[in-house]
Amino acid sequence: METRFDWGRGVRTGVPEAIFSEGKTVDQIGAILDAARQRSASLLLTRLDADKAEKLRAEDLDYDPVSRTAILGSVSPVLPIDRPLAIVGAGTSDLPVILEAQRSALYLGMNAAVFADVGVAGLWRLEEIVPDLRGYALVIAVAGMEGALFSVLAGLLFAPVIAVPTSVGYGVGAGGNVALAAALCGCAPGILTVNIDNGFGAAAAARKILAVRSWSPGAHQ
Amino acid sequence: METRFDWGRGVRTGVPEAIFSEGKTVDQIGAILDAARQRSASLLLTRLDADKAEKLRAEDLDYDPVSRTAILGSVSPVLPIDRPLAIVGAGTSDLPVILEAQRSALYLGMNAAVFADVGVAGLWRLEEIVPDLRGYALVIAVAGMEGALFSVLAGLLFAPVIAVPTSVGYGVGAGGNVALAAALCGCAPGILTVNIDNGFGAAAAARKILAVRSWSPGAHQ
Amino acid sequence: METRFDWGRGVRTGVPEAIFSEGKTVDQIGAILDAARQRSASLLLTRLDADKAEKLRAEDLDYDPVSRTAILGSVSPVLPIDRPLAIVGAGTSDLPVILEAQRSALYLGMNAAVFADVGVAGLWRLEEIVPDLRGYALVIAVAGMEGALFSVLAGLLFAPVIAVPTSVGYGVGAGGNVALAAALCGCAPGILTVNIDNGFGAAAAARKILAVRSWSPGAHQ
Amino acid sequence: METRFDWGRGVRTGVPEAIFSEGKTVDQIGAILDAARQRSASLLLTRLDADKAEKLRAEDLDYDPVSRTAILGSVSPVLPIDRPLAIVGAGTSDLPVILEAQRSALYLGMNAAVFADVGVAGLWRLEEIVPDLRGYALVIAVAGMEGALFSVLAGLLFAPVIAVPTSVGYGVGAGGNVALAAALCGCAPGILTVNIDNGFGAAAAARKILAVRSWSPGAHQ
Amino acid sequence: METRFDWGRGVRTGVPEAIFSEGKTVDQIGAILDAARQRSASLLLTRLDADKAEKLRAEDLDYDPVSRTAILGSVSPVLPIDRPLAIVGAGTSDLPVILEAQRSALYLGMNAAVFADVGVAGLWRLEEIVPDLRGYALVIAVAGMEGALFSVLAGLLFAPVIAVPTSVGYGVGAGGNVALAAALCGCAPGILTVNIDNGFGAAAAARKILAVRSWSPGAHQ
Amino acid sequence: METRFDWGRGVRTGVPEAIFSEGKTVDQIGAILDAARQRSASLLLTRLDADKAEKLRAEDLDYDPVSRTAILGSVSPVLPIDRPLAIVGAGTSDLPVILEAQRSALYLGMNAAVFADVGVAGLWRLEEIVPDLRGYALVIAVAGMEGALFSVLAGLLFAPVIAVPTSVGYGVGAGGNVALAAALCGCAPGILTVNIDNGFGAAAAARKILAVRSWSPGAHQ
Amino acid sequence: METRFDWGRGVRTGVPEAIFSEGKTVDQIGAILDAARQRSASLLLTRLDADKAEKLRAEDLDYDPVSRTAILGSVSPVLPIDRPLAIVGAGTSDLPVILEAQRSALYLGMNAAVFADVGVAGLWRLEEIVPDLRGYALVIAVAGMEGALFSVLAGLLFAPVIAVPTSVGYGVGAGGNVALAAALCGCAPGILTVNIDNGFGAAAAARKILAVRSWSPGAHQ
Amino acid sequence: METRFDWGRGVRTGVPEAIFSEGKTVDQIGAILDAARQRSASLLLTRLDADKAEKLRAEDLDYDPVSRTAILGSVSPVLPIDRPLAIVGAGTSDLPVILEAQRSALYLGMNAAVFADVGVAGLWRLEEIVPDLRGYALVIAVAGMEGALFSVLAGLLFAPVIAVPTSVGYGVGAGGNVALAAALCGCAPGILTVNIDNGFGAAAAARKILAVRSWSPGAHQ
Repeated sequence: METRFDWGRGVRTGVPEAIFSEGKTVDQIGAILDAARQRSASLLLTRLDADKAEKLRAEDLDYDPVSRTAILGSVSPVLPIDRPLAIVGAGTSDLPVILEAQRSALYLGMNAAVFADVGVAGLWRLEEIVPDLRGYALVIAVAGMEGALFSVLAGLLFAPVIAVPTSVGYGVGAGGNVALAAALCGCAPGILTVNIDNGFGAAAAARKILAVRSWSPGAHQ
Repeated sequence: METRFDWGRGVRTGVPEAIFSEGKTVDQIGAILDAARQRSASLLLTRLDADKAEKLRAEDLDYDPVSRTAILGSVSPVLPIDRPLAIVGAGTSDLPVILEAQRSALYLGMNAAVFADVGVAGLWRLEEIVPDLRGYALVIAVAGMEGALFSVLAGLLFAPVIAVPTSVGYGVGAGGNVALAAALCGCAPGILTVNIDNGFGAAAAARKILAVRSWSPGAHQ
Repeated sequence: METRFDWGRGVRTGVPEAIFSEGKTVDQIGAILDAARQRSASLLLTRLDADKAEKLRAEDLDYDPVSRTAILGSVSPVLPIDRPLAIVGAGTSDLPVILEAQRSALYLGMNAAVFADVGVAGLWRLEEIVPDLRGYALVIAVAGMEGALFSVLAGLLFAPVIAVPTSVGYGVGAGGNVALAAALCGCAPGILTVNIDNGFGAAAAARKILAVRSWSPGAHQ
Repeated sequence: METRFDWGRGVRTGVPEAIFSEGKTVDQIGAILDAARQRSASLLLTRLDADKAEKLRAEDLDYDPVSRTAILGSVSPVLPIDRPLAIVGAGTSDLPVILEAQRSALYLGMNAAVFADVGVAGLWRLEEIVPDLRGYALVIAVAGMEGALFSVLAGLLFAPVIAVPTSVGYGVGAGGNVALAAALCGCAPGILTVNIDNGFGAAAAARKILAVRSWSPGAHQ
Repeated sequence: METRFDWGRGVRTGVPEAIFSEGKTVDQIGAILDAARQRSASLLLTRLDADKAEKLRAEDLDYDPVSRTAILGSVSPVLPIDRPLAIVGAGTSDLPVILEAQRSALYLGMNAAVFADVGVAGLWRLEEIVPDLRGYALVIAVAGMEGALFSVLAGLLFAPVIAVPTSVGYGVGAGGNVALAAALCGCAPGILTVNIDNGFGAAAAARKILAVRSWSPGAHQ
Repeated sequence: METRFDWGRGVRTGVPEAIFSEGKTVDQIGAILDAARQRSASLLLTRLDADKAEKLRAEDLDYDPVSRTAILGSVSPVLPIDRPLAIVGAGTSDLPVILEAQRSALYLGMNAAVFADVGVAGLWRLEEIVPDLRGYALVIAVAGMEGALFSVLAGLLFAPVIAVPTSVGYGVGAGGNVALAAALCGCAPGILTVNIDNGFGAAAAARKILAVRSWSPGAHQ
Repeated sequence: METRFDWGRGVRTGVPEAIFSEGKTVDQIGAILDAARQRSASLLLTRLDADKAEKLRAEDLDYDPVSRTAILGSVSPVLPIDRPLAIVGAGTSDLPVILEAQRSALYLGMNAAVFADVGVAGLWRLEEIVPDLRGYALVIAVAGMEGALFSVLAGLLFAPVIAVPTSVGYGVGAGGNVALAAALCGCAPGILTVNIDNGFGAAAAARKILAVRSWSPGAHQ
Repeated sequence: METRFDWGRGVRTGVPEAIFSEGKTVDQIGAILDAARQRSASLLLTRLDADKAEKLRAEDLDYDPVSRTAILGSVSPVLPIDRPLAIVGAGTSDLPVILEAQRSALYLGMNAAVFADVGVAGLWRLEEIVPDLRGYALVIAVAGMEGALFSVLAGLLFAPVIAVPTSVGYGVGAGGNVALAAALCGCAPGILTVNIDNGFGAAAAARKILAVRSWSPGAHQ
């Protein structure tokens, strides 16, 4: 069965296709990696479990077990963007998603500063970093549980806020649906949301937003 | 069909039975009012629509159309408690629930101060009143939408916080389920929750909590 | 009861507070309008039913019954932005949300071009306008039902795509939850989502994104 | 306890009873296989885990671990149909369901051509194969995530489209409910749907549809 | 705002675009009707409330208040098909959906025989008509409540069965979700499903299926 | 911590307390068994996993691994009832629940005849046994998937029907909620329902129903 | 379109078919009434709104507006049963469902005693009537909100308990799903459940249960 | 990445920050423990699995495997409170949550008496302890399944009742949502609720409530 990898997606949309590894066998992933190597293309893999990563035995893969991401190739497939990007996380348990966002951003040509452990139950933590945050062009906010961080943050900043709800929580908060809903009906205007645990999606959107600045009609067609 | 009104509930539990008027006919409500008048008992009615209130033609009823509550009799059925109680509301649309809580508290012997319009999208509003709020023994927080107020408030105060989620919202926030879930999985410890729009329930719980102070074993048996 | 309108939100976050009119009485809305008039502030009202609009008897209100929005004052409260913004709608029934987004954008200093009736069941409609769409810096996509438009559009464009799911649909699609979920788990990277029917939220986010271009650290503090 | 296998189902409905192996013990499955062998009947087993397949130690079983299907006997229990049938899949992770459909079709006398990896995020992949697809009498579409493929495909083809939503996805898309809902409220007319991951059901329905052509009243009674 | 009606859909997919009237204003519907009249095209409208129908004041519209469908023009936009099509309904309350299916079928060139009131609680009713039903090439089954009709019917017939779950029911069955789920996980193989109350969708699918018989590659391109 | 086993429940309600073993440790279960032995009481344990059963090392326990039930003591704690009771099951996968019901019935003094594999997709199987079933005073019906068996059976029998939905199913039918809903909104009158997979509950209810016959006021007080 | 009323259901199942009037037009209901009059059959109608009842202008209909039931004919279609039946209701708002059950029971040949207003918040009310309730062969329990009555009652009585959850409630309890779930997972053994608000269903089941006593094989065939 | 532990939370809110161990690695937990040791601070860890506890190899940790809690340090971080606190549990399976509440209370300076195994199916168990319970200032009620305990208990006691729904249950009761909903819409006034299985949250709220008694404005600022 022929595969149809979308190699042109980076040029067409500004964000190259990444490999969502869940539900794919080691052989299927290996075949895509080989295809990339033949084209000398770099590649980002998300949701790659440690045992699959090991079975791939690929020394040219930069694998991170916390975020379960792997990067093939050392050159970003897109031009670097130097607009400052921040990632703000609510709790220690959100770290895997924070890192997926940060490493995806790196792959997409952006250095993202991380501010972790900024839950609103201790509001002083947020107030401490807000002056710093005001220096960033775009903020990715990562939170599980009740997701109160999204509204509070968006009410304090001029920059756009991309909310990444995480599946951290239990009871009614299990699975991340409450944090997601909180992002969607947050009372501060202009919060943008991606799927639960979708750190890559947030980085991809960040890339598209920050690219708006340097963009002019026709340039990417 | 005989009715079995629980006239002894006030003595037994500290909170007399109130009439939830939804789903009851004007005749049924009228009959309970008459029974109360015969006992010279006061009575609280919640969720009483304006047209039912009018049809009751009861001049001894103090009716408030915004909260849809009515009070029969001018004397609280329980002894007054002077511990300071505050009600904090997130938005103007939460007013009906705020007032149900305040009037229920009044009926239950407590004067509650109301701080309205304290949504977290403008955090300065909350910061402005926190010093004042620290002077209260108990705080009822009323919020719809994403309910971020509950976590933020509980992270700042020593007093217990009772969350009343409201049905204010739309899309995923319609019906109040997101605000309820936010209260239940709030990241600040010790938030207590009642049902959506249940201002009376919050006041009843407040009565029980504030009565703990003056309480000694055996006194109420 | 004192109100605490967040007059500083525009300066602080780039998007002034708007009035969500559902659940507010005519008197409450009237009082906020008066406060705005005293400050010579302009104001946007969303979800304002025609009968409330009529009862307000406000000749200085520009009311649109399809989008149920009203604008007080003829000057945008923020500086105009001339980056091209497009709104793409899937069906005729999505028009109220499309117009809420367009009028909100106008109020926030942006002229948005509308491409309506571009459902994917007739893909030629989308293909016909894609070359045009490639000239826009940002695209707001409005769709109900199964929300397939979001993925297809985002897979074709370099510009960021903000998805606004609408409550248009019936059966399993009633209420907009399917379109919302489609936006959140769309297979094209970088789709950003706001709440169901939240045209204003999309315009607010668009403002924040397009303002990134002209922004430099400290400028808005 | 007597079993009541429905051996007459193939003659009665055009599709013989297949064995759904989940929740059945190896002994129970073995007993049904023996009964089939005694009748020289062929048999299809779905959702047969590899370890159960191994424990059955049945050399006359053709087992495929990706689709978890097994076929007993080399002759289809129904007459072959030569109307062209296509299976279109959205992503590599959908392969198990695609293969369950293809192998079920084979068992039911139909050769199905598979077009894999045709997600709408890269629309060129679909456009590339549409001319080919127009040569098929019936199309089975297999997709998870947001299921946009169903609407787009059905809007381009004359042939009926049977949608098989898959459980591929995460966050709000986990379990396949979003893809299912997308199929049900797709904006292109005439999409038909089966249960999540039900490749066999799609093949069974395909058999019944393609048999309509050669059918005349009374022939099958 | 320009509309983009998909006039070519009939030729492209075998089923012309119909007008879903819910959420459209009388003016919007009127404009589409005028466009159709100018092209001498016939048109089907579904979910058209009686008051809208009256306001349209269109004498060339054939309106049926039970099914809330209207047909413009007396000639079917597609060639008639004479393969026998049956519609089987479970209860009297399902009549609006049954008639939507029957009238849609008529518009699409098919005469459908209706067998109403065939609920499985009185199985004799079904057994009485099964011999007749065996004479039909395709069966549309319409049922609400628990939707048991779908499995029972599909287990008895050679012809394909399209299930149309209806919103008839109350308590856990309200809205049609139980009947829909019953269709999707019915134990008889090959049941095909459309959205709740979607009589038109069933007729559209029936058209596509019955057209398979007379179809040969290339004929419709 | 003192335990409070309800030893009097059998006399008071007709059904002795059984041990739901899920979530209990081997030590906790062992302690209850010892207490029963000291009283020479018999005891029924449900949902007892095989590994727990083995760890209990109790030779006086009659354990069945398919139904995961264990019975301590060889004498039923209640008087036998000889009214005929039947259990009808839809599929082979429902066997664990069928056996939990049958063994619970045995423990409660009733011999239940089992009719397995009577799914409605092959209606002849049901029709074959209906004459037999008409000889039973009470019928327990066990089915997963779409649960059509409940309505069909209840429409054919004079005896009461207790529906036990099972968690057998996948996709929308996973977990048993569809079968449960089918039982609750079945179109045949008088279907009674217990929780998903609750074979013991059905047997307990059967005991109470069949005891009605021999009951006269005061006899059990 | 021919109707197929199941006139034989009473003889076959012990409970004659009743008319669920929701979703039926006045003409449809009138036609069934006429058919019944021609056969001199009695008939029960449920969920018949007052305005439909009035439009029927049927003097031989005994209509009750609270339960929205109507009875045609003064003779029960089945033989009377004199086993004592009780209906216990939790609150005044449950009255419509209590009366639907009582009047349905009457129509089915049973006199049911009603014990209303027995909510568990005042447990003395239940304790007061338990000695009386012990004199009944079968108890129907009607409750909304959290449905705690079901477990408490079933833990105290020897007779079978049929739970009728009602849609009385608000917030998370709206629609009756919590009361339904409480009945299904009640901790007292042997609770049987019918659909939300289904007073008729409870009466039908009661009829079948009480008929078990006088039943012997063959008598009803 | 810098962590921001909220060491001041105890002074600010009356309840020190505890460590929710799920989703945290052993290294992350170890680092927080070290930070606490350096400050000579005591610390509570919840949801700490036995294998993580073992890997921490911390002899100064008091670990309890049933409640999965660990306490670092032998001194409560807050002043002891001697108001009597009771924990009432419905069943043996609720023990882990009961113990999480009891040990959290201990850490927070309160001795809690436990009354286990008080399910309402045997109401005598509750009646037996109610006189004792009337001697407590505050009651925490722990129950899964249908959660009827909450309403019954709150209807009998003067003290406030905090409901802790547990995830004990199966079928519709799985996960604890029914018990949670029962607490929220309980018919007895003033029930307060925390998240499912949240024993720590209940203890934290209890601390805040019991501290109200000894509290005077300004004392904790």
